[in-house]
Amino acid sequence: MRKLPFDASDDRLAAAAWSRLVEAPDPAAGALLARLGAGPALEWLSAVASGTADAADRHWQQAVGRWAPRLETLDIRRELDVLDRLDGHLVVPGDDAWPAPLADLGEQAPPCLWVRGDVAALAAPSVAIVGARASTAYGNTVAAELGAGVAESRRSVVSGGAYGIDAAAHRGALAVGGVTTALLAGGVDRLYPAGNAGLLEEAAEAGALVSEVPPGSVPTRNRFLARNRLIAALAGATVVVEAAWRSGALSTAGHAAALSRPLGAVPGPVSSMASAGCHRLLREYGAVCVTDTDEVLDLAGAVGEHLAPQRPSAPGLLDDLDPLAARVLDALPARAAAAAPNLARAAGLALAEVRSALGTLELAGRVERSSAGWRRAPADRPSRQAE
Amino acid sequence: MRKLPFDASDDRLAAAAWSRLVEAPDPAAGALLARLGAGPALEWLSAVASGTADAADRHWQQAVGRWAPRLETLDIRRELDVLDRLDGHLVVPGDDAWPAPLADLGEQAPPCLWVRGDVAALAAPSVAIVGARASTAYGNTVAAELGAGVAESRRSVVSGGAYGIDAAAHRGALAVGGVTTALLAGGVDRLYPAGNAGLLEEAAEAGALVSEVPPGSVPTRNRFLARNRLIAALAGATVVVEAAWRSGALSTAGHAAALSRPLGAVPGPVSSMASAGCHRLLREYGAVCVTDTDEVLDLAGAVGEHLAPQRPSAPGLLDDLDPLAARVLDALPARAAAAAPNLARAAGLALAEVRSALGTLELAGRVERSSAGWRRAPADRPSRQAE
Repeated sequence: MRKLPFDASDDRLAAAAWSRLVEAPDPAAGALLARLGAGPALEWLSAVASGTADAADRHWQQAVGRWAPRLETLDIRRELDVLDRLDGHLVVPGDDAWPAPLADLGEQAPPCLWVRGDVAALAAPSVAIVGARASTAYGNTVAAELGAGVAESRRSVVSGGAYGIDAAAHRGALAVGGVTTALLAGGVDRLYPAGNAGLLEEAAEAGALVSEVPPGSVPTRNRFLARNRLIAALAGATVVVEAAWRSGALSTAGHAAALSRPLGAVPGPVSSMASAGCHRLLREYGAVCVTDTDEVLDLAGAVGEHLAPQRPSAPGLLDDLDPLAARVLDALPARAAAAAPNLARAAGLALAEVRSALGTLELAGRVERSSAGWRRAPADRPSRQAE
Repeated sequence: MRKLPFDASDDRLAAAAWSRLVEAPDPAAGALLARLGAGPALEWLSAVASGTADAADRHWQQAVGRWAPRLETLDIRRELDVLDRLDGHLVVPGDDAWPAPLADLGEQAPPCLWVRGDVAALAAPSVAIVGARASTAYGNTVAAELGAGVAESRRSVVSGGAYGIDAAAHRGALAVGGVTTALLAGGVDRLYPAGNAGLLEEAAEAGALVSEVPPGSVPTRNRFLARNRLIAALAGATVVVEAAWRSGALSTAGHAAALSRPLGAVPGPVSSMASAGCHRLLREYGAVCVTDTDEVLDLAGAVGEHLAPQRPSAPGLLDDLDPLAARVLDALPARAAAAAPNLARAAGLALAEVRSALGTLELAGRVERSSAGWRRAPADRPSRQAE
């Protein structure tokens, strides 16, 4: 086993190196780094792999067995050079820009983050808007509206880099000049999928591109699944806009639920397979039904700062009346006049109650006296019976 | 006060009479009938109203004040004659056909039910399918499908008689030769709205038309609202298919919740005002998201008899593999071959783990050995990278 070509005791270099050595999530690596720090942990690994030290037990022997193959070709300075050429930043635990919520991942937290764009975007209050690649026009519209709405509330949008809902959410945020953050499964030098390269470049300008793997890393299926835990952990709440019954977006939702992060799902037509996963989240996973930005912000729990307003609704004819008056008005014919005793029978009320209610209604300008008895005021003559 | 022109001590006649005297819900009447029985209660009312007896206190004085105006013109035999000509049936508490679940209404239970059609429909297991008059084509389709599905499961559909969702639910049940029950706000001789008269006649043939008010009674707003409690109480579960943010269907839902009956809501596009009330039920009232008949029957709680099946879904390429094998297969290039040590680095696994996984994969026919190393079996060469 060769000696490492860089200073393994340098904690930043070592943290970067660990992100190359492990396939996330690797709780053994998380535990080791938390206990020793990245530098000493890397020196220990190097010593064990070269035979100059012993792994304590079978658990650590297995872990070293997983990590050692990549030690042979490891020179993390190359990946850091690539990041540098992209004006990127390495963010490690303890940095001001390190997102505190990642601590909730415990031993599954990443050793570092590779970031292009503004590292401040990482620590901003944020909402994850995620969903299916195979989205519908409906889902894309809703995702873009929610992305714009979240961005306008001065929160960052967090999503993946995929076609469909992810892309629509970023576009919505970018359209209103907001901040958006894309978490990539591969390196930040590999804008995948290629068709989203332009969009992801824009996200890097307006927010950040983030990965837990170094430049040059390809986006494997395992990395997509691992990346989903970062989306869920980083965001204050996760909203799934469209997802098939079985879908990667549900894995992000599962992480959000496991982390006790608020989880929302956007409903859609029951006939749409692209909404089946959202309905499943509502039925089986206790997701909250969210239909607009206000409800999403409510979910994200900006208590006192934002509450979903009660919808405006046209008051019905009887809505502002006390129940007795409403019943008497209800009993009045649409156009004809009626005497109080007849109204008592029609409404099933005592004559005294009817007289009292008629007084109230008269004061409110809802009924008029006429020679033939009581009748509705002109504005109160409905054109149709209500059901 | 004149003497009643019929035998007030006859409990059936008296129960029918009470349904003419009170505007539901009238808890005082409910309490009185529960305590004395309908006949003695009517004799007591007649005596108090004519001054030959005293109401015990102000509460009962007020109640008598409400009921007395209608005593003057009361001859319930006329309404019973109308019912008879319609081949209808009066159902009173204690009758075999009296629906036991109405007991949950307590003092708000009706004194009797006026029924056209098959009284057995009242006691059948049932699901209420309700919603907006101002429904969309989407809502109508879903309501008809659920109506048909519920009817095919040998349950009765329960709904109102309105245009829109109510009518679509009945139509769905009728289309499959099922049983459906319409609860009307007016008398069963008044098929309201007129445009649904044909449909309601069919419902009377295939199930029942039910009202708590006698023939001749007009459907007032108060009676629509009161009727909603009967729908919620009669049905084993209530499902709202479409409803505006503010809607009569939500009153039925509120009754179902108050009665601890299972409550379901069908989601729809967030852009559809006709689904806003359903989404509100999901958010604020703990309604269960239901998207098809299986989920509705699940809601109705036929435990052991019916469970919503897990959706079939196409297995992904890696789904049936253990996690280690999945990671190794994931690390194999789509078309090229790779040596085991390269796979160990690519997958972040120990060489021994990779060799073991390759053995598993070879046995499963997922990988092949070649002179250049390991490669995917032809069927396992994906055309695209997954996200």
